[in-house]
Amino acid sequence: MAPTDRFVAENTFHIRYVETDAMGIVHHTSYIIYFEEGRSNYARQRGSNYAQFEQEGHYLAVSEVDARYIKAAQYGQQLTIRCWIEEMKSRGLTFGYEILSTATSEVLVTGYTKHICITHEGQVAKLPDEWRKWAGT
Amino acid sequence: MAPTDRFVAENTFHIRYVETDAMGIVHHTSYIIYFEEGRSNYARQRGSNYAQFEQEGHYLAVSEVDARYIKAAQYGQQLTIRCWIEEMKSRGLTFGYEILSTATSEVLVTGYTKHICITHEGQVAKLPDEWRKWAGT
Amino acid sequence: MAPTDRFVAENTFHIRYVETDAMGIVHHTSYIIYFEEGRSNYARQRGSNYAQFEQEGHYLAVSEVDARYIKAAQYGQQLTIRCWIEEMKSRGLTFGYEILSTATSEVLVTGYTKHICITHEGQVAKLPDEWRKWAGT
Amino acid sequence: MAPTDRFVAENTFHIRYVETDAMGIVHHTSYIIYFEEGRSNYARQRGSNYAQFEQEGHYLAVSEVDARYIKAAQYGQQLTIRCWIEEMKSRGLTFGYEILSTATSEVLVTGYTKHICITHEGQVAKLPDEWRKWAGT
Repeated sequence: MAPTDRFVAENTFHIRYVETDAMGIVHHTSYIIYFEEGRSNYARQRGSNYAQFEQEGHYLAVSEVDARYIKAAQYGQQLTIRCWIEEMKSRGLTFGYEILSTATSEVLVTGYTKHICITHEGQVAKLPDEWRKWAGT
Repeated sequence: MAPTDRFVAENTFHIRYVETDAMGIVHHTSYIIYFEEGRSNYARQRGSNYAQFEQEGHYLAVSEVDARYIKAAQYGQQLTIRCWIEEMKSRGLTFGYEILSTATSEVLVTGYTKHICITHEGQVAKLPDEWRKWAGT
Repeated sequence: MAPTDRFVAENTFHIRYVETDAMGIVHHTSYIIYFEEGRSNYARQRGSNYAQFEQEGHYLAVSEVDARYIKAAQYGQQLTIRCWIEEMKSRGLTFGYEILSTATSEVLVTGYTKHICITHEGQVAKLPDEWRKWAGT
Repeated sequence: MAPTDRFVAENTFHIRYVETDAMGIVHHTSYIIYFEEGRSNYARQRGSNYAQFEQEGHYLAVSEVDARYIKAAQYGQQLTIRCWIEEMKSRGLTFGYEILSTATSEVLVTGYTKHICITHEGQVAKLPDEWRKWAGT
């Protein structure tokens, strides 16, 4: 499902025990946290840095989260998260995600998050050029 | 936005410091946790009990989460969560939510979660009658 | 174990499902979060407010956490947390805690946290008088 | 502070945004989660596997956590966690930890956790030989 016409960042990590719940599986909110780490990793792989983005006066506020759960994961597995730009606008963007079992490549969870660029005073602002150029590549 | 034609469970709680992030606001994943606590509270207010539901051999697996973020909240505020049954099917259901500032009644976040009733062996199963009767009232 | 010669703040809450782990019990880090909520509640019950404490330019940095785990808790239980001032110094304080099963009054976890008062610039500072007066009562 | 006379497992990771709080730093409970991931990594580096340990009928219950906080960390930093066996007994063990800034090698947090080996029925049990042999090396 990850698009083939643009950059897709990928990283692999171990499930943490704290991320499981009494059903014996990874809790559904853990994947929303993996999404966030997926977009941090996206920025790093593009040579950018969300910490610096903030230091320069911006925030990327979350305006929507959507996740679809296809299959459960357990402690002991490794997961791979793929993250890409679904849509780029002047003042915001949408990231797409898929999370796979690293061993089997089965897709376990898909989703997207929408973001608005704001200043530290809460005003909607244009995304920095460095971030906007990701859209074309 | 909470419906007026059916039961809406409501509870009020303090934001925990751990639920905030470096933007100085409540982290977006915290609201997905509040959703979960909202449906636990829904079951309790209907005289039911999700712990017992599990002990009787069922799980309510999460198949989708959607959240829209309208306004941020800070540590020190109290929040109110409203939770209701958006749709009831024989083998699953959808909960709707809204989270308000208790002080101002402003709606901060809305969302829904979809669930499928499964056995502890992972087979899709009918929801217990006790839970299905919630739909009509 | 809670002392009888000073103010002890108490509050009761439901375990959240997310706070459990694949052992089927409350994850050990959840209790450290309950400690934090216990001291937030302590401040509220003394007519004070940690949010305002921060707005006035202070932070209460954590310098040490210690927790002893006696008995596990499960989703479906209610817990009661007791929090008191173990030691008050001019530039810091120690909170003591015990967490009980609300139904049986059994003590499940005990612990303490040490804190240093710092300014937003990171300088060690005197605790505000409003907080220091807690020690004598 | 990490001992030089025994095996020390080390791994490096990025701070997740969710792990920060409204002070702008990594929340103190996040380090307790890093400790847990440090000991998961310890088992992996020794060719063992905590998931399998559980499947074979054991749990490693946490009986004590202690953490000392020396210096704060921020989102954008990488952290290194070192984990070793502080003490090995027939029915339990103590892990020691130190967490460093990867860039500067400054120690930010130190701590230990004590564990008891129990069966899934909650009986105290001997640690498997595979785990006990770690003590001598």
